[in-house]
Amino acid sequence: MSGTSASLPQPPSLLDHIRPQALSLPESGIVEVMNYGRQREGMIPLWAGEGDLPTPSFISEAATRSLAAGETFYTWQRGIPELRAAIARYMSRLYGQAEDPERFFVTGSGMQAIQIALALTLSAGEEILIPSPSWPNAAAAAEVIGARPVYVPFSFDEVQGFWLDLDRLESAVTPRTRVIFINTPANPTGFVASHEALRGVLDIARRHGLWIVADEIYGRFYYEAGEAGRAPSFHDVMEPEDRILFVQTFSKNWAMTGWRLGWIEADPSLGAVLENLIQYSTSGVAAFIQRAGVAALERGESFVAHQIERARRGRDIVAAGLATSNRVHFAPPPGAFYMFFGVEGESDTRALALKLVDEAAIGLAPGTAFGPGGESYIRLCFARGEGQIGEATDRLVRWLQR
Amino acid sequence: MSGTSASLPQPPSLLDHIRPQALSLPESGIVEVMNYGRQREGMIPLWAGEGDLPTPSFISEAATRSLAAGETFYTWQRGIPELRAAIARYMSRLYGQAEDPERFFVTGSGMQAIQIALALTLSAGEEILIPSPSWPNAAAAAEVIGARPVYVPFSFDEVQGFWLDLDRLESAVTPRTRVIFINTPANPTGFVASHEALRGVLDIARRHGLWIVADEIYGRFYYEAGEAGRAPSFHDVMEPEDRILFVQTFSKNWAMTGWRLGWIEADPSLGAVLENLIQYSTSGVAAFIQRAGVAALERGESFVAHQIERARRGRDIVAAGLATSNRVHFAPPPGAFYMFFGVEGESDTRALALKLVDEAAIGLAPGTAFGPGGESYIRLCFARGEGQIGEATDRLVRWLQR
Repeated sequence: MSGTSASLPQPPSLLDHIRPQALSLPESGIVEVMNYGRQREGMIPLWAGEGDLPTPSFISEAATRSLAAGETFYTWQRGIPELRAAIARYMSRLYGQAEDPERFFVTGSGMQAIQIALALTLSAGEEILIPSPSWPNAAAAAEVIGARPVYVPFSFDEVQGFWLDLDRLESAVTPRTRVIFINTPANPTGFVASHEALRGVLDIARRHGLWIVADEIYGRFYYEAGEAGRAPSFHDVMEPEDRILFVQTFSKNWAMTGWRLGWIEADPSLGAVLENLIQYSTSGVAAFIQRAGVAALERGESFVAHQIERARRGRDIVAAGLATSNRVHFAPPPGAFYMFFGVEGESDTRALALKLVDEAAIGLAPGTAFGPGGESYIRLCFARGEGQIGEATDRLVRWLQR
Repeated sequence: MSGTSASLPQPPSLLDHIRPQALSLPESGIVEVMNYGRQREGMIPLWAGEGDLPTPSFISEAATRSLAAGETFYTWQRGIPELRAAIARYMSRLYGQAEDPERFFVTGSGMQAIQIALALTLSAGEEILIPSPSWPNAAAAAEVIGARPVYVPFSFDEVQGFWLDLDRLESAVTPRTRVIFINTPANPTGFVASHEALRGVLDIARRHGLWIVADEIYGRFYYEAGEAGRAPSFHDVMEPEDRILFVQTFSKNWAMTGWRLGWIEADPSLGAVLENLIQYSTSGVAAFIQRAGVAALERGESFVAHQIERARRGRDIVAAGLATSNRVHFAPPPGAFYMFFGVEGESDTRALALKLVDEAAIGLAPGTAFGPGGESYIRLCFARGEGQIGEATDRLVRWLQR
């Protein structure tokens, strides 16, 4: 430090004056590695929860037609009726129950669906239970409210993979608990709740008068789905009076990560309140984006099937590769599209992720980004084409065997 | 009520279990009238803050090109660099200062810019000062946080129109006050803060260590702008260390209400925190929408000028019409694009708005929608073509003179 600058008084920082909750929000541990590696030539980026396929053109063209027709004005806060009806038809088909369009509220991303679900249920000083490791954004959205995420560690063994200990979940309930956040199939662990586990969570919620925020966005990415075409869901076990809010997104099934389009499913009696919360956060979603959503739901099934098949092959390639290395412990995940694994001798996974950028030209996400219990793991997104996944696996295995 | 239904136990309502703050959020008083009248044939709708022109095609086509090029992936949380740079150039041009692109953070609407500005500055139990009557959404966004809007009434006389009493503003400060929300030019009053008033507000904020959230979205719609092309701004009077967050939108200048695109302007030192708040609310804005924003800023000046000229003519037509009626008190607003006026003998403006739908086939917004002090007024948006505004004014004046 130069003498001159040392003698100047330090200007007061604007950061000293913002809300403590905003200041203490975690920075994404994934973004750090992405920023470190994104410009490297030849990198294979498997850090984000995103595939390599752009949105199919029949979806984009629906937005283009809407724009050309001048659908550029304010629209329905709850979503255009056509999209709410299309969601209801899609959900009815997939879950085998006649769903009412009045249950569906269009949001500007699955993330916003979570934010609004929490604004509906959670106040400053209250608590939300989150099985962990987990995608960090739900916990962070609770922190923005001034609420406290309480992490409930998943159990792990190499036979079952990650599983949820219901006694441990229930023992984390306090008088301040208001919400249980359940992500199934889960990012990053690949955990998929059985119907028995879902019933167990629901029983706990009922006993303690809690809300469930059900994040089933990877429901189609379930590798043991069979005919059902989806993972077990709270839809299968709930009663109409249960306090469950479902959060959903178009991002994964239809390769629409960049669109910021999702929905909340809730009892229609909550409609006026949800509409207000949408009004006072972003005031709705562009109508032309919603038209794309209609196209995705009505004409997207073969694309979804293609994406699931691709992810399944990706999973098998990575699992086969990792099995040839003695340094890795993992269980092939039954759901979602991430391999979340530990590497023997590499306890600092942030450092590991940076080394893999430098030395193997692959981009993975460090487990430190996923909260308590994730620290010793690293996440690889396998929702990509066989060629890239094969090459990335080769690079990883070669690096592990050096 | 039938004997059967009376004897059934009332099922417990889900509404009993949501956050009290969410339950008590006000429903929009504008929406009630819109729902009442929107299907009527021949209605002239002047209730919303929206013109009748769709987005110009050179803007929509920028989005279309981006979509066709496959820009459908996750993008920068702060906004694409091209848009941040375009905003900086636009602001530099308009405010005569070299603006750093690092000051600008793209949001999914001006509404979201407000939500994020409040999440940065305001906690549950704290207070925000809002001159009133005012557009209700800023107050409601504070209520979602669990904070309390404290309304400071504008003064009104038919010579000056609405004006802000700085002593009254300062006397509303309490130890819990954190933010002053200033909308200038203002919706619905048309109030435009002079440089003197802006300095006065800034002095109060400095003396009490408060943030200013500056909503200058109608800055171009100032009918006494002359060469400057805009209203007085906090940009003209602030120092770099002042705690000011600007919220902005593409909605009004470029007829992009339906797009949900805006920005926050803040000191770059707040960048990491703002990025987190964006990440944990909607995780950014679609890249193809941002491309449209670039086109608007770079090629939209003649369209903006056209819109301002149209609004000016609309204002003059309405003012001339109202002047012929002895029942109306108003002052032609120097800014924004609303006539906010009282009608003698009509103290219930909600009922008045419904009557005007039925009996005059024009849609206005009742003053009850705009908080304390607005109750005896009614709002007319004049950002439309001469033909419609002329016809609407004739209908209104005929109705008043019945």
